[in-house]
Amino acid sequence: MTYQVFDTTLRDGGQREGISYSVADKLAVARLLDEFGVGFIEGGWPGAMPKDTEFFRRARTELALKHAVLVAFGATRKAGVDVAEDPQVQALLDAETPVVCVVAKSDIRHVERALRTTGEENLAMVRDTVAHLVANGRRAFVDCEHFFDGFRHDPEYTTSVVRAAFDAGAERVVMCDTNGGMLPSLVTAAINDVVRRAGVSPDSLGIHCQNDTSCAVANTIAAVEAGVKHFQCTANGYGERPGNADLFAVVANLQLKLGLKVLPDGCLEQATRVSNALAEIANIAPDTHQAYVGAAAFAHKAGLHASAIKVDPLLYNHVDPAVVGNDMRILVTEMAGRASIELKSRELGLDLAGHPETLTTVTQKVKDLEAGGWSFEAADASFELLVRGELPGEALVRPFTLESYRVQVEHREDGAVVSEATVKVRVRGERVIATAEGNGPVNALDEALRVALSKHYPQLRNFELADYKVRILEGSHGTGAITRVLLETTDGPREWTTVGVHENVVEASWHALTDALTYGLSRSTTRA
Amino acid sequence: MTYQVFDTTLRDGGQREGISYSVADKLAVARLLDEFGVGFIEGGWPGAMPKDTEFFRRARTELALKHAVLVAFGATRKAGVDVAEDPQVQALLDAETPVVCVVAKSDIRHVERALRTTGEENLAMVRDTVAHLVANGRRAFVDCEHFFDGFRHDPEYTTSVVRAAFDAGAERVVMCDTNGGMLPSLVTAAINDVVRRAGVSPDSLGIHCQNDTSCAVANTIAAVEAGVKHFQCTANGYGERPGNADLFAVVANLQLKLGLKVLPDGCLEQATRVSNALAEIANIAPDTHQAYVGAAAFAHKAGLHASAIKVDPLLYNHVDPAVVGNDMRILVTEMAGRASIELKSRELGLDLAGHPETLTTVTQKVKDLEAGGWSFEAADASFELLVRGELPGEALVRPFTLESYRVQVEHREDGAVVSEATVKVRVRGERVIATAEGNGPVNALDEALRVALSKHYPQLRNFELADYKVRILEGSHGTGAITRVLLETTDGPREWTTVGVHENVVEASWHALTDALTYGLSRSTTRA
Repeated sequence: MTYQVFDTTLRDGGQREGISYSVADKLAVARLLDEFGVGFIEGGWPGAMPKDTEFFRRARTELALKHAVLVAFGATRKAGVDVAEDPQVQALLDAETPVVCVVAKSDIRHVERALRTTGEENLAMVRDTVAHLVANGRRAFVDCEHFFDGFRHDPEYTTSVVRAAFDAGAERVVMCDTNGGMLPSLVTAAINDVVRRAGVSPDSLGIHCQNDTSCAVANTIAAVEAGVKHFQCTANGYGERPGNADLFAVVANLQLKLGLKVLPDGCLEQATRVSNALAEIANIAPDTHQAYVGAAAFAHKAGLHASAIKVDPLLYNHVDPAVVGNDMRILVTEMAGRASIELKSRELGLDLAGHPETLTTVTQKVKDLEAGGWSFEAADASFELLVRGELPGEALVRPFTLESYRVQVEHREDGAVVSEATVKVRVRGERVIATAEGNGPVNALDEALRVALSKHYPQLRNFELADYKVRILEGSHGTGAITRVLLETTDGPREWTTVGVHENVVEASWHALTDALTYGLSRSTTRA
Repeated sequence: MTYQVFDTTLRDGGQREGISYSVADKLAVARLLDEFGVGFIEGGWPGAMPKDTEFFRRARTELALKHAVLVAFGATRKAGVDVAEDPQVQALLDAETPVVCVVAKSDIRHVERALRTTGEENLAMVRDTVAHLVANGRRAFVDCEHFFDGFRHDPEYTTSVVRAAFDAGAERVVMCDTNGGMLPSLVTAAINDVVRRAGVSPDSLGIHCQNDTSCAVANTIAAVEAGVKHFQCTANGYGERPGNADLFAVVANLQLKLGLKVLPDGCLEQATRVSNALAEIANIAPDTHQAYVGAAAFAHKAGLHASAIKVDPLLYNHVDPAVVGNDMRILVTEMAGRASIELKSRELGLDLAGHPETLTTVTQKVKDLEAGGWSFEAADASFELLVRGELPGEALVRPFTLESYRVQVEHREDGAVVSEATVKVRVRGERVIATAEGNGPVNALDEALRVALSKHYPQLRNFELADYKVRILEGSHGTGAITRVLLETTDGPREWTTVGVHENVVEASWHALTDALTYGLSRSTTRA
């Protein structure tokens, strides 16, 4: 029996605060999940959510899936209602998916206190709904909500829900850790127990874990090790509260650590790309520290062991980053040597191997700057500008040169706080003076600079400040403290980070701001 | 045998990109970890890192820990060197901590390829170093680096490292999943195997997990279930790559799910507060979705089940949020609730129990301010001023009132950057205008204010800006981003932290600066 990789990014994952997919988003997400090779894509709750109804309608003509089938999600019939008369159940059939997954209460307390019906009626609701779906040619999966809490409280009742689902023709019964309170050893024990009580094979069961103990991935793995062959995940672990089991970590662990084949060939290598693309669509900043697919997942501080890492990367990486489509990243950090500067440059597409003198110059510059408090560890864009400024044949054009600026912040007698900046710059041979207000000194500078450059660089209007971090570094040898500014800028699809260091926070911000615009403009020019 | 909760936020956690603690930061982190009740605080690598040497030096007089002991981290002696002649080992003794933790290679491939020495010499290095530490009165812990990879590759060699450490007098030998590639079932199997091969009891072993499979918490739990009684974690899971096992999730799981007592009474309830305060100090945005302590950890979408949740919250929460100091709500404020405001005030020596109306007013003020982006978790001084401003009978005298200020930063044609500030204030009935220059806008404001106040408050000259942190918070409902400034001030023996929030970084700094001087002056007046 093969593994069923069941993705619910579009249904349960959408519960995460702040996620709100359009129908076009949902179609794009489904295509990406299919490229990753999942077997089932739970697309939403037709009938209950108008957007989901529309998604399933458009999917019929607009989605051509290679690996996955679509799943409509819904609930068992209402208490006291004929299943054939229940519009919610009818909407599931109207979605015309080969598979339907219905959620059923399996904790008697929830049956009685939330659903306000009897245990017997709940069992009838499960039986009627599953039988009706099967009679209409659907494969039926049943999500047992609050399974583990219910099973602990009243194992007999929860087991009877499992039996009712199978008796009515369910293909899979899924144990849901809805509150997310389980640990791997508890999952293993519960599965062994329910298999014995229900008299079913573990490979007919499924698992769905929430991450409230920070163990959703491990709990899912534990279930598979106990014989379960169907697991429900969400991309990047999106979901309510601390989220769901992360699809990428679960699949990578099963394939790479336990040697189980759960995805078609060539799919695991898409993990990093698909993860980042899904984050873009969800409009959530990718988690740098995510296992396997995060930008820092295989990042090493260069320094002491740079040469050892270069020779023997597998002594330092738990898997080859390429198998999940990721890269080993070298952090340019204090005490950086030539090896790590070269590695880092290659990562950015700049070949320094053929330019030993440039490599020497850049290495020396980085060392000098780091001694002065600069740090390129989180500022790839500033680092790239530095290298490109030294590389022969690279025509790095600075979009403007500064003559002077002045920024003023006033707290007036009436309590109003006003910021104003004036910049004097040269843009393509022209001297421009511009003044603007802002909600703070850096914002005022940014605005004034945009006014000054807008004629020559209209694409500036797409650049937006995404994050701004300031850090005071302790001075050395009695000199004053210095300020380090990290600036994150975005133009929508891309984000880049620049750095500025100076004893004056405004001047440090100015450096980072200048780099941010230079980098963004040079990239948009290259593309044009 | 009791559990050893070993925190390495200050050592291994500091490997996370972007974290850069000052010595004052490190002292503040240690105090918070002690409040959380950990037994061991690994403070850094004295000798190798000048800041860490300084931390241990200052800790001797400035840290009064209730629960924890300090641990100095280092490495075994160099190959081919007499341990008594190794300056790195001497620096460990010079740190004067009761416990020293040394890292040892335990994977023969790392011994031969990275360390470039023989397996025998590596064993001698472990024995010599441990024996030397013990002979000098230290408790010795040994971190076996790349333990699990090494054990899989050559179990005999790795086991011989474990034996060498114990033979020389090590109190604990810690199995480190340095590359982070383990799963719980693999951890269990390896521990059972090494216990048999080495002939040791599992309760003399320790565990240290990295999160590269997203299973660091579960792997740590699995080790404890296998009998291990010493576990190494970092607050919020900070660490390189995907990070380390999160202290808060590990401890909460052990206490609440497995019923093990690992913290002193009353400490687990500090989890959320300590987690957030540590994020502030690290200058990393708290992870909303973190298990147990995240703002969304017990957030429920108010909809279908709102009333059921209200009646029966434990049907929807895997634990009572209060046991980890968290709250069930959508917008969790960091210090919401009368109980915690009262507790916190008592901690600062202010009794609100006898003033229920004041408690109500303060609670409401804190809630309103937190909704606007303020955070008092790392700013005790500002919180104390707020409470004292409301307490009847407390004569909180503001040393001055502001009429207006103006700050200007100029980058001139010759490249010079000049900051100048003018303040107009009333001090004890007198109107004072003062102007000063500074190396940045906030410094200029600070200097101008000192000039204005110096006649009436000569003790101001002892106050010094120790640290300054800025964070941009995302705006809501289309308003602009707001800026939060944390200011740390010292007068030599004492340090205090204040906060300011405004869309303008200068105005936010002004708030924090005003609080800093008010707090410092009111304390020095009280003492005089």
